[in-house]
Amino acid sequence: MEEQVEMVGRAFVDHYYLFDTDRASLSTLYQPTSMLSFEGQKLFGADDISSKLKQLPFDQSKHLISTIDSQPSSPTGGILVFVSDSLQLPGEDHHLRFSQMFHLIPTPEGSFFVQNDIFRLNYG
Amino acid sequence: MEEQVEMVGRAFVDHYYLFDTDRASLSTLYQPTSMLSFEGQKLFGADDISSKLKQLPFDQSKHLISTIDSQPSSPTGGILVFVSDSLQLPGEDHHLRFSQMFHLIPTPEGSFFVQNDIFRLNYG
Repeated sequence: MEEQVEMVGRAFVDHYYLFDTDRASLSTLYQPTSMLSFEGQKLFGADDISSKLKQLPFDQSKHLISTIDSQPSSPTGGILVFVSDSLQLPGEDHHLRFSQMFHLIPTPEGSFFVQNDIFRLNYG
Repeated sequence: MEEQVEMVGRAFVDHYYLFDTDRASLSTLYQPTSMLSFEGQKLFGADDISSKLKQLPFDQSKHLISTIDSQPSSPTGGILVFVSDSLQLPGEDHHLRFSQMFHLIPTPEGSFFVQNDIFRLNYG
């Protein structure tokens, strides 16, 4: 159980940070009930979240993931994934550090969707 | 609903960071099912979590909370609280930056307990 949660967390993060090269593919991870807090801005539902992610100036950014912590959120199969990471924007030498958490909920198809997503840059 | 979630998140964080002066009071926030990931170390249950928190060299540390983001985790009243913060240890001039997330679950008594707690320092 413990190991499975870790594996799902890592597989999700690998998939999510395809972000780097294929932002449009992320929209399938969210559902109408999903929520995103991005630097304090709140977005509700897959459509608004997807629009927001497409607008970010992070195209072709490089993610250097430093830690992933995963825990089961409930006895019904939800998983919390907490990522501490840095981001290198194209043409920039320095890195932006950020933390992000995801709450994954199992789907009837045996996959997961993102119910909660909270992103914050860590200013130095 | 939205505002209530924010209020609970803020009230919880205020209470939690009493940490600074009264670490023992925190143990009442956890239950036997609770989980803590502290810098990658996993602890299960109120007793082990409480022992860990008491061992931390953060007595009389000062917390300077910079952001709190809260979201409902489920239709049954759970709340996710994401904190980005810095910590000043006694006798130290510089700050340690960290991020921490809590998953709060309502109790039958109308309060909340911490089901999930993940803490990571953000190295510069």
